[in-house]
Amino acid sequence: MKPFIVMDIVKEALKLDDVIHLEIGEPDLLPSPKVKEAALKAIEKNKFFYTESKGLKELREKIAKHYQVFYNVEVNPQNIIITTGTSTAFLIAFYFAKKIASPSPTYPCYPNFAELENKEFINISTDKNFKLNIDMLKTYDFDTLMISSPNNPTGIVYDNKELKEICEFCEKNNKLLISDELYHGLVYINEYTTALKFNKNAIIINGFSKFFCMPGFRIGWIILPDNLVRKAEIIAQNILISAPTLSQYAALEAFDYEYLQNVKKEFQKRRDFLYENLKDLFEITQPQGAFYLWCDISRYSDNSFDFAKKLLYKAKVAVTPGVDFGNFPNYIRIAYTKNIYELEKAVIRIENFLKNYC
Amino acid sequence: MKPFIVMDIVKEALKLDDVIHLEIGEPDLLPSPKVKEAALKAIEKNKFFYTESKGLKELREKIAKHYQVFYNVEVNPQNIIITTGTSTAFLIAFYFAKKIASPSPTYPCYPNFAELENKEFINISTDKNFKLNIDMLKTYDFDTLMISSPNNPTGIVYDNKELKEICEFCEKNNKLLISDELYHGLVYINEYTTALKFNKNAIIINGFSKFFCMPGFRIGWIILPDNLVRKAEIIAQNILISAPTLSQYAALEAFDYEYLQNVKKEFQKRRDFLYENLKDLFEITQPQGAFYLWCDISRYSDNSFDFAKKLLYKAKVAVTPGVDFGNFPNYIRIAYTKNIYELEKAVIRIENFLKNYC
Repeated sequence: MKPFIVMDIVKEALKLDDVIHLEIGEPDLLPSPKVKEAALKAIEKNKFFYTESKGLKELREKIAKHYQVFYNVEVNPQNIIITTGTSTAFLIAFYFAKKIASPSPTYPCYPNFAELENKEFINISTDKNFKLNIDMLKTYDFDTLMISSPNNPTGIVYDNKELKEICEFCEKNNKLLISDELYHGLVYINEYTTALKFNKNAIIINGFSKFFCMPGFRIGWIILPDNLVRKAEIIAQNILISAPTLSQYAALEAFDYEYLQNVKKEFQKRRDFLYENLKDLFEITQPQGAFYLWCDISRYSDNSFDFAKKLLYKAKVAVTPGVDFGNFPNYIRIAYTKNIYELEKAVIRIENFLKNYC
Repeated sequence: MKPFIVMDIVKEALKLDDVIHLEIGEPDLLPSPKVKEAALKAIEKNKFFYTESKGLKELREKIAKHYQVFYNVEVNPQNIIITTGTSTAFLIAFYFAKKIASPSPTYPCYPNFAELENKEFINISTDKNFKLNIDMLKTYDFDTLMISSPNNPTGIVYDNKELKEICEFCEKNNKLLISDELYHGLVYINEYTTALKFNKNAIIINGFSKFFCMPGFRIGWIILPDNLVRKAEIIAQNILISAPTLSQYAALEAFDYEYLQNVKKEFQKRRDFLYENLKDLFEITQPQGAFYLWCDISRYSDNSFDFAKKLLYKAKVAVTPGVDFGNFPNYIRIAYTKNIYELEKAVIRIENFLKNYC
């Protein structure tokens, strides 16, 4: 299995002083104060026991309501399973797959989950904007398509028309569609939706770690079509028992839309700032969602791992090498998960670094 | 994949009123008040972010110290990874195996984990006390031996001599040994220890869900030999990111030995009570650890699933059918995870049930 390189960079970076951490995909913002209150209350009430394997019914109902509010899509709470982060959601979803195809670059854990379950994983080449289209799909042999929009690391988002085409292709060709929607909410274009809108048989994966700013709570969810729910529940009984109970109670209060609106605005402001300030230094496709810039460093290096290490040790800016996301030795991923003040400092450090060392 | 039947029984049982729940392997006792305090403090301090993938260094150090105190065995905190419950610890451990052999009856998740990772799982027949011996081991073909002592569901414990033999057999024959020690601490004989004592290359799995009474926190640990630590860390980076942060902080205060001594005493009292009161109704090998009675119901039924369902609906006592643990249609598992008062009521209900319906 390949290391999740960013986690190693984190470890290295923690040994140094005064590093600006733009490597890990973890929001620096706190969750809504209501989440904190709910967690405290759950502890006071000794909520220390297992829940049902599928998770608290109230939480599954709140998630179903979220689909109503956010996408105007009906979801039966019975079709939702609460998972430990999204990682275990992927383990569940991949159980139903044989050959999984996914557009490249890709979240490094996907192929590793496939390896753990002894499934084939196929990287699909994408266009110059890192997007997939139907013509490309037709040239690959697979039974399961895994997409993520907004994408980690590129920040690209499929608009409704593009998503609909992909969804309908899967439906027509009898391919299982797994849609990773973990960065939903953090989208800076107007038009986007869940794959469920166009494909009732899709498996949807989402969680509380990004938009809801609850990474350490390790809590996510998976939505399954009727014919897979029971099988998925059985896997959950085994690999989860149940998701962490305190986290489930805390998440009950996560749907604080007023607060979340400000979270989104903050990340959008950072994206605008960082994109404007780096777009002349690197080749960058402007991201439409998530909190990453995917920067082509070809002008300076064709070894992203060395480049990232040098940037860390010489300029004290931690970023993730592109090789973490596939065969991308000339890219780095910069996460704008620090405030504007830190990002300003980072820009200056990066400029100086490029001037002096590249 | 086979359902983890007990989780289904739990769901059924929750629909009925006035059920005595002796089905799920979850302690009813609260963790030490220090754990609660630590969890509250962690929330106050906004400990909502990921930790290092291996888990908090302080927690790994406390676990290492526990091995010193409890077993007089040296463990390097570097060789410990904090996991989400023990479930993910098994997923990590099984990655290193090809053909896993395990004495029967067995924890139902083991073969399911093996199935998820597409590994072979072999049930080893045991003697009349459900114990393994070396002669049996020699007749099977496998590369990994998985033992659990105290055993779930039988409650048997290998004493030091028996454990040493198994450990040395594995060492000599180049078999990987995975030792599930989750019920350590809840042992009612004087002499027992960790497999690490006799086999430095064993993988040890343990957690905070049983003895430490923290099931809903979903937190455990795995200890690996030097040559597997880094590989295991990579798997953890992928399937965990990191274990739930609040749970890790709470677990820092779990090693409250004075409190834990009382937890053990309470379970021992219950074992004594329940064994004394049921041993004439069922054939039972007196358990030496954990919190289960493994009862032969042959006198009444050869279909443990029907028997358990009838006991639930007619007598309002929830137990787990033996079929959950392998080919044991004439056994049920009774968990003494309720107080003596409840157990007294349960005994009366079971007596009446056997009189009237069997």
